[in-house]
This record gives sequence, structure tokens and C-alpha cells, in this order.
Amino acid sequence: MKTRAAVALEAGKPLEIMDVNLEGPKAGEVLVEIKATGLCHTDEFTRSGADPEGAFPAILGHEGAGIVQEVGPGVTSVKPGDHVIPLYTPECRECEYCLNPKTNLCQAIRTTQGQGVMPDGTSRFSMEDGTPILHYMGCSTFSNFTVLPEIALAKVNPDAPFDKICYIGCGVTTGIGAVINTAKVEPGSRCVVFGLGGIGLNVIQGLRLVGAEMIVGVDINDSKKEIAERFGMTHFVNPNEVEGDLVPYLVDLTKGGADYSFECIGKTPLMRQALECAHKGWGESIIIGVAGAGEEISTRPFQLVTGRTWKGSAFGGARGRTDVPKIVEWYMQGKIEIDPMITHKLTLDEINHGFELMHEGKSIRAVVEY
Amino acid sequence: MKTRAAVALEAGKPLEIMDVNLEGPKAGEVLVEIKATGLCHTDEFTRSGADPEGAFPAILGHEGAGIVQEVGPGVTSVKPGDHVIPLYTPECRECEYCLNPKTNLCQAIRTTQGQGVMPDGTSRFSMEDGTPILHYMGCSTFSNFTVLPEIALAKVNPDAPFDKICYIGCGVTTGIGAVINTAKVEPGSRCVVFGLGGIGLNVIQGLRLVGAEMIVGVDINDSKKEIAERFGMTHFVNPNEVEGDLVPYLVDLTKGGADYSFECIGKTPLMRQALECAHKGWGESIIIGVAGAGEEISTRPFQLVTGRTWKGSAFGGARGRTDVPKIVEWYMQGKIEIDPMITHKLTLDEINHGFELMHEGKSIRAVVEY
Ligand SMILES: NC(=O)c1ccc[n+]([C@@H]2O[C@H](COP(=O)([O-])OP(=O)(O)OC[C@H]3O[C@@H](n4cnc5c(N)ncnc54)[C@H](O)[C@@H]3O)[C@@H](O)[C@H]2O)c1
Ligand SMILES: NC(=O)c1ccc[n+]([C@@H]2O[C@H](COP(=O)([O-])OP(=O)(O)OC[C@H]3O[C@@H](n4cnc5c(N)ncnc54)[C@H](O)[C@@H]3O)[C@@H](O)[C@H]2O)c1
Repeated sequence: MKTRAAVALEAGKPLEIMDVNLEGPKAGEVLVEIKATGLCHTDEFTRSGADPEGAFPAILGHEGAGIVQEVGPGVTSVKPGDHVIPLYTPECRECEYCLNPKTNLCQAIRTTQGQGVMPDGTSRFSMEDGTPILHYMGCSTFSNFTVLPEIALAKVNPDAPFDKICYIGCGVTTGIGAVINTAKVEPGSRCVVFGLGGIGLNVIQGLRLVGAEMIVGVDINDSKKEIAERFGMTHFVNPNEVEGDLVPYLVDLTKGGADYSFECIGKTPLMRQALECAHKGWGESIIIGVAGAGEEISTRPFQLVTGRTWKGSAFGGARGRTDVPKIVEWYMQGKIEIDPMITHKLTLDEINHGFELMHEGKSIRAVVEY
Repeated sequence: MKTRAAVALEAGKPLEIMDVNLEGPKAGEVLVEIKATGLCHTDEFTRSGADPEGAFPAILGHEGAGIVQEVGPGVTSVKPGDHVIPLYTPECRECEYCLNPKTNLCQAIRTTQGQGVMPDGTSRFSMEDGTPILHYMGCSTFSNFTVLPEIALAKVNPDAPFDKICYIGCGVTTGIGAVINTAKVEPGSRCVVFGLGGIGLNVIQGLRLVGAEMIVGVDINDSKKEIAERFGMTHFVNPNEVEGDLVPYLVDLTKGGADYSFECIGKTPLMRQALECAHKGWGESIIIGVAGAGEEISTRPFQLVTGRTWKGSAFGGARGRTDVPKIVEWYMQGKIEIDPMITHKLTLDEINHGFELMHEGKSIRAVVEY
């Protein structure tokens, strides 16, 4: 079949909207009609050429929601008509990782996913002339129709609106999950969140959800204050307006240091500040942001020996097929909010404008509706 | 009164054995006759002048055992005749830290302890001419008699031999505690221990105690292999004999990476290796070694985002008054061994020889008996 898609032909070039060929699902695979997709920094990281592992041509996009159209042989957990969210972190429930309760990093299809192909080693996408186009993060939601492995699909409530819950495919789950799965924040905690973008705001609403007492947001962009407060931030700090060093300022503000801190920007000097503003004896700092290629974090080991813990979180420590449907329910029940974070709606033809909005810091999330 | 002590008069000089004045215990304080004391790297760190916070003249030593001689006003938890182990990490059971189950870093007397004085701001030790001599880590076990705050004394089984259980005052508890309190290692775990000295061997016996399946010891000194095996090491790795990089070698050996790794040396490049040989998804690395002043650890944040955790441990995360008496019982019951680690016995007059043995890598623990 043919499908309309935004194709990344070369690193650093705008995406090209075109018709591409899509083969039907093979064994264990599912054809999904994508109804909406968010634009995330990771897509831009690859599009721009900053990602050293980026390969082209590829169809990017990993934050989508849609409807199952057709299932390949052996698929049992979803059927045509089911509403689904694609998972860039799958959940096979059989590998060593899925069977270890401490991690969500299913490894069942990691190698082929990293190579931009389906588990059988081939791509379902190709150009008019037959040249294969790579899949991306196993999702490729910048295509109106896409093929995914069954283990990379979360079946969700069919009443939930696609243009909102697509965001649960990455940003919402990453932020809320880092709070509840990775950090396991307790009620009454004092927390500091570095970066009030699409991820940081979801960390903030995760903290509100679990009853944190103090939620300090740190951002150099004052215009983020209002929306962050709306999601539960109790104190705002703009580092450019702090006299002296930021770390002692945050330690003071939190009366001794943060019980939990989160880095949601991707800059290594801020990861260090996030660690060092954590409370002596028990503070934990969680890295969510993705740093530039080859960049390193550092600190004096004394920071750890005196009781701070340094962790990271990928996809919020969530197991997609199990946890994503629950988060969709939380949205439907009003326990979490998504609507105010979807600041821009675009058509597929306008997708490059979405990346401009991201660069200008004007959008929290831009969503493409098909 | 007068007491015999080894005094550090100046940084970098051998200790001088002399008679010094000792005032009796004030309110909340206890006079203890030290019967035996171990020599630990931290004493040497200060004696040598490497410790930027070292102050002189001081009476070093923090790994002792002895008998209560006299108690000051208000002391209720110990009485003359009780056998005790001095605690450089006290346990007041009242401060914010003691009341938080996540930490053992009681802060009740931290400031004065760091300054080398008792909680009232003065020292009990002085020279013949009246010049005050500083306390050290609140213990000063290189003096036959010493004064300590009540909250810095663990009351222990009076049948236990001083020349063995003194080691529980630091090394044994630091190693075993890092396993059971900080890492909380589960039975069946695969672990890597960097450094098979006085701390590393106790990590190893802690791992055996909790039922670890694979206990890999890493040391550049082959002569440590035999004793480490005696304490439970299952595999020995000499980095100088490994072809290629150590980290992938250890990852292979542990079939994917260590569930827990421990750095028991104090070198920042090894702290990085310890983290990076931890298993993706769930491996935890615990820093125990104390690095040189100003040295920093570093790694790519991706190591944490993909599920490794970086922690540190001080005094094995143990609460001294509560946990040290239990570890003494474990020794008495044969659950843990100490005797083979006490490789040298010295008199106080021979104490400087003990530091030589340490430098030559010949001793695990040298113990001074009074
Ligand atoms: N670990 C994961 O699973 C995962 C998943 C998705 C995204 N991410 C990463 O999370 C990071 C954040 O993503 P996002 O979508 O929220 O980005 P974003 O651009 O929407 O938000 C970043 C925020 O940081 C602020 N900021 C920038 N520099 C700052 C500084 N020096 N001090 C303080 N604030 C500063 C910006 O003003 C902005 O509000 C990115 O690195 C992204 O790649 C990680
Ligand atoms: N965190 C705490 O509470 C605490 C308490 C006590 C001691 N310590 C620290 O723990 C560390 C270890 O103390 P220890 O008494 O066991 O020391 P040690 O000298 O007895 O043991 C160190 C071991 O490391 C080995 N080693 C040295 N360089 C090496 C290298 N490059 N690669 C592999 N092995 C190497 C040595 O051969 C030796 O066996 C010290 O830094 C000490 O200050 C920490």
C-alpha cells in the first residue's frame, strides 16, 4: 500500500512530505493507522544530525496514537479496531530484562530497532523507486500508516482522544514515570525539577500526583512559570536571577537539599547541579535529559559517599504495555492533565514548522493530526 | 589524669609516643580505656598531610574497643565496666538524620567533631605544657584512655576479644554494611569488588553472608587472592593480566554486568570502571574508597539513563549503637570472620611500623594492643 509520510532524507534537512510504499505486517507485526503524533526533542536530535547513530533516509516520530488496521500471523494481543499507542520501549514479557522487576528496558528487539528495521531485519517502508526507508525507534509515527511489532503496542481506552494521548507515548510517561517508577517519590517530599519543557512539566504533575510538598522548578525562560504553576510547581527559580551559586541557593530553599531532583534538559553541567542540590544523606537525583554525544557528567565522589544517589530514567521506567494503558485511564479520570500542554496543532504538511516552534521555545508540545 | 598516646604533632611526621594530660568526662561524656585499636587508611590520610582538613597536634585513631571507666553527668546508656566500641559516626536517635530511615549520618555533633573538639567546643587532651591536643573523628583511639560523647559509644558483648572487635569500629562494618545496608544485595547476585584490602575483604564476606552467587575480586596485587578466596571470593581478576579493556572483560565474566559493584580503593578511574561494569537496566555501583582531595568521578550520563545507579557508602550505612553490637554478635556466632584479617599485632610504641606495613601492602589490619 501507499501512505503519506514525512521523510528525513538527509541529516540536517527539513522533512519531505511524500507518498511512500508500505508493506503489510509479517508474523508478529501489526499495521496501525496513526491518528496523531507529537514532536519530541529526540526526533529533532536525529533530524538535525546531532545523533551520531542517526541513519537516513528514515521516517521519524515515536509519540503517536492510532488504530489497528491489520495483524500479521500469530498476533493475539491486539485486533483490527483496537486503539493503540506505539512503544519505542517494547515489553515482550519474556526476556531477561522484562523478567527483572528492576528495569523496563526490554531487549527483545533492541538490535534490529537500533538498525531501523523490523525484527526480521528488513524495512516495511520504501521510496517510489524501491529504495528502502528506515523505521525509527521502532515506531515511525510521522507516517499515516506504519507497521510495528505486536510487543511494541499498548492497547488503550478507545474513548480517549488521539490528539492528547499520543503524548503518553513519550513525554507524559517519561515525566510521570520518572517520579513514580524510578524515584518512587514519597508524599511530603521536597523536589527540584530542572527544565520546564515537555518533560519537566510532566515530572511536575507526577510530583503533584504523589503528594510532594515542595516542587521547585528551575528554568531560564520566565514564560514557563505560569504553566508550570498550573501543573503544581510551588516555587520558581530562574538561575539568571540568582545571586551567587545556584546549588547553595536551592539547598537553602529546600531546607537542606532536595529529597529528589530531576534533570529534564540534557545539559551535563545542570546534571551536576541537580545532583549537588540533593540532600546529604538521602537525596536522589534522576537524569532524564539526553546529553550531546560524548559529553560527560562529573562530581566529587564525596557527594555520593555522603549519601546522595545518582540515577537515570528511560521512558520513565515504565513498562509500556502494562503502564501506558493505566496512564491513559488517569487522563480520562482527570488525575493528570494533558490538554494545556498541547500548545500547537499541525497538519503533516506543516510538520517542519513544528520543529521551528520547538527551537523558539514557543511550544510545549506540537501535535500533528492526520 | 595522664595517659600514654601516639600524637601526630605535624603533618607528614611519624607519630610521637608520649604522656599527655586527659581531663575527665563532662556532661554527656564518657571516659574509656582503649584496649586495642586498628590502623586504618583514614588515619594515614590525615597523618601524611594528604587530608586538606587535617589539623594538628592531634591524637588519631578511630577503630578501637575498650572499657568504660567513668561517666559524666547525665550519661545513662553506659556505665563503668561496659565494653564499648567508639563510633566516629555517632547515633543520637534525635536529629533529622537519625529520624530518617534512609541515612546513618547523624549530625548531632558533626561540627565540633570536625573541629577536633568535644561538643562543648573544648578538647580533653593537652600536652605537658598545657597546649591543647585535638581529638580525631571524635574517637582518638591512639590514646590508652580517651573521652567520647555517650552517643558515640556502642555497648557490646563483654565476652568479645578487644583485639578483634576493634576492627568492627571501622573496616568490618564499612564493608559488610555497604553490602547489607547500602546496596541491600539479594541472594544470587553477581558482584564485583574493586580492591581486596581491609575494606574489600569485608565487602566480600558481606556478600558471602547474604548469599551472592558470584563474587569477583579485582586487585593488582596477586598475593591478595588467597585470603580473598578464604572470605568468599569466587573469581579473581588482576587488571594487569587482562588483555584489552577491563570493563568489557568484567561484563563478560558476570554475564552482562555486575548486579552490584563496590569500589574499595579510592581511585576515581576505578570508580568509573566499577560503575560501567554494572549491569545495564539495574546494576548498582557503590563507592566506598575515599579519593584524593579535589578529584572527580565522571562518566557518560547514558550509563545512568540506561539503568545503572551510582551510590556511596559511609561507615557501611550502619547506625553504630544499633548495628555494631549486632555485628559483634555475628562474629561471636561465627557468621563472620575477623581473625585472619588481623595480620599484625603491635604495641603502641611500634605504631609507626604499622603505617609502614600498610604502605608496603603487607598488612590487612595491624592492631595495636595496649
Ligand atoms: N530519558 C528519556 O526517556 C527521555 C525521553 C524524552 C525526552 N528526553 C530528553 O529530555 C530532555 C527535555 O526534553 P523536553 O522535551 O522537555 O525539552 P524542552 O526544550 O521542551 O524543555 C527544556 C527546558 O529547559 C530549559 N532550559 C534550557 N537551558 C536551561 C538552563 N541552562 N537552565 C535552566 N533551564 C534551561 C528551556 O527553557 C526549556 O523550558 C531532552 O534532552 C530530551 O531529549 C528524555
Ligand atoms: N566510606 C567509608 O566509610 C570508608 C571507611 C574506611 C575506609 N574507607 C576507604 O576505603 C579505601 C580502602 O581502604 P582499605 O583499608 O581497604 O585499603 P587497602 O590499602 O587495605 O586496600 C586497597 C587495595 O586496593 C588494591 N589496589 C590499589 N590500586 C589498585 C588498582 N589500580 N587496581 C586494583 N587494585 C588496586 C591494593 O592492592 C589493595 O589490596 C580507602 O580509600 C579508605 O580511605 C572508606
